[in-house]
Amino acid sequence: MSASGFLAIDWGTSNFRGWRIGSTGRIEASVELPFGVSRLDPSQIPRRFEQEVRPALNGEDLPALMCGMVGSNIGWRAVDYVRCPASLADLARGVATLADGAAPVRVVPGLLDGAPDVMRGEETQIFGWLALHPECARGSHLVCHPGTHSKWARVEDGRIVRFVTAMTGELFDVLRRHSVIGRGTDAENEVEFSAGLDAAGGGDALSARLFATRARVVSGRASADAAPSYLSGVLIGSELGGLPRLIGARSGETVHLVGSPELRKRYAFALARLGWDFEEEEGDRAVIAGLRALVDQGALA
Amino acid sequence: MSASGFLAIDWGTSNFRGWRIGSTGRIEASVELPFGVSRLDPSQIPRRFEQEVRPALNGEDLPALMCGMVGSNIGWRAVDYVRCPASLADLARGVATLADGAAPVRVVPGLLDGAPDVMRGEETQIFGWLALHPECARGSHLVCHPGTHSKWARVEDGRIVRFVTAMTGELFDVLRRHSVIGRGTDAENEVEFSAGLDAAGGGDALSARLFATRARVVSGRASADAAPSYLSGVLIGSELGGLPRLIGARSGETVHLVGSPELRKRYAFALARLGWDFEEEEGDRAVIAGLRALVDQGALA
Repeated sequence: MSASGFLAIDWGTSNFRGWRIGSTGRIEASVELPFGVSRLDPSQIPRRFEQEVRPALNGEDLPALMCGMVGSNIGWRAVDYVRCPASLADLARGVATLADGAAPVRVVPGLLDGAPDVMRGEETQIFGWLALHPECARGSHLVCHPGTHSKWARVEDGRIVRFVTAMTGELFDVLRRHSVIGRGTDAENEVEFSAGLDAAGGGDALSARLFATRARVVSGRASADAAPSYLSGVLIGSELGGLPRLIGARSGETVHLVGSPELRKRYAFALARLGWDFEEEEGDRAVIAGLRALVDQGALA
Repeated sequence: MSASGFLAIDWGTSNFRGWRIGSTGRIEASVELPFGVSRLDPSQIPRRFEQEVRPALNGEDLPALMCGMVGSNIGWRAVDYVRCPASLADLARGVATLADGAAPVRVVPGLLDGAPDVMRGEETQIFGWLALHPECARGSHLVCHPGTHSKWARVEDGRIVRFVTAMTGELFDVLRRHSVIGRGTDAENEVEFSAGLDAAGGGDALSARLFATRARVVSGRASADAAPSYLSGVLIGSELGGLPRLIGARSGETVHLVGSPELRKRYAFALARLGWDFEEEEGDRAVIAGLRALVDQGALA
């Protein structure tokens, strides 16, 4: 750990979260700001960080370690991916410097799976989850990180060996806003969400399962208001039906669910309904633990 | 056939096509207009038909038979679905009157499959295909009607016994315009389209196969320009991998492909690549044949 502490930053496409970590490793301050990199002109990013984030965290003189899309071609600067299989040490070796000086800014690289598949940000949460769960340091484990682009990763003996992405959240969002099938209210309807999960068909023929959202409404089988809940069920059910198989999940294996409380709630409900064992970990806690672990590996040295 | 001929109308969500059919059954005039029902205020629909379509077809005094979304709640008037299994006679019995008088306007109902699934317009093309292919009047046949909402139908002894819809075209359109994965040019790239077909994985885990469109670009495996062709390949490949199974296709069965020339071209390429036998029929020819067959069944009587 840096003797003087550091700024831990999770800067994604839509959201920004930052924490000041003290020299003893304690969280001393935190900030959440509405400027994901997709909402900023890339040329503004360094200035917004120096002029808004540092003062908010009272961290003008601290080194910063960032993860997420800030290290992509829509962020501060594109940083090369590290290839799977990748250990925490491999990731630390790929850390790049965005700004030098007394209070440097560094960024964690994303991971590349040969399939191909890519992630930026989730790798830090996965290694953070691993740091928080030393009992998983050995052996083979299955991690699910739900989101706009949900990631399923296979972790073996402390390395991320492969992963696959389902664009569940983005499909929900574009269909909700731009298609004939997702019109309705945002109110959660557990009965319709469950019906969607049950109709997902083990992950096959998603383009047909999706259309049922509309067919149920126009045939009078369901109310239009509940369509988004059903749609969410079909999409999450399809992810849970298809992705574990793609990543080589074993029957009866525990899913380690890492993410935000609201997404964990939906996925936990779905996993339970579909008969999976699972353990939950809070996403923010995981990202902080991951950035700390990288600092311990010399990412700010 | 009506002694005086009739107007045959295919009025869909996006497009309008009409023909004047003479007393001998010949096509005497045709018109294509840019007003699908989704582009019109429903209250305008009757007036647009009487004041623009009839003069364009020189058919002021002829009865009209329409099919498509004009018979839905976004069209002239919502007409009840006919339930599968449905014969041509069942469909003719469900024809509803939209406007009465010396030159009446009637509309073909859509079909409802209990799954549930719905179609409006494709049923007329399927019965038209059947009228054009008397060799298919007996036995079991598989029809694919590609489109915004692709329909796969099982036809047995002249009846549509069940069908299923894949929202392939709509997914392509919303992802192309509103997601991170579909940016690129509309130029067709056969190599990328083929790569997408091959990556579709037999129809499973579509939300992961779709994300590969982006992963291939950001990992440098493919050019961003070609992403729409790859995306189209994944979506059509997923439909061909999943839908035939859902509708109970037999291995080696011939797919009867009914639709527009540009969609038939893509689907024919994909079907050939994936090892399916297929026969093609032109969509306009099928819709006219279907409306004629319904008139012969007394739909305008």
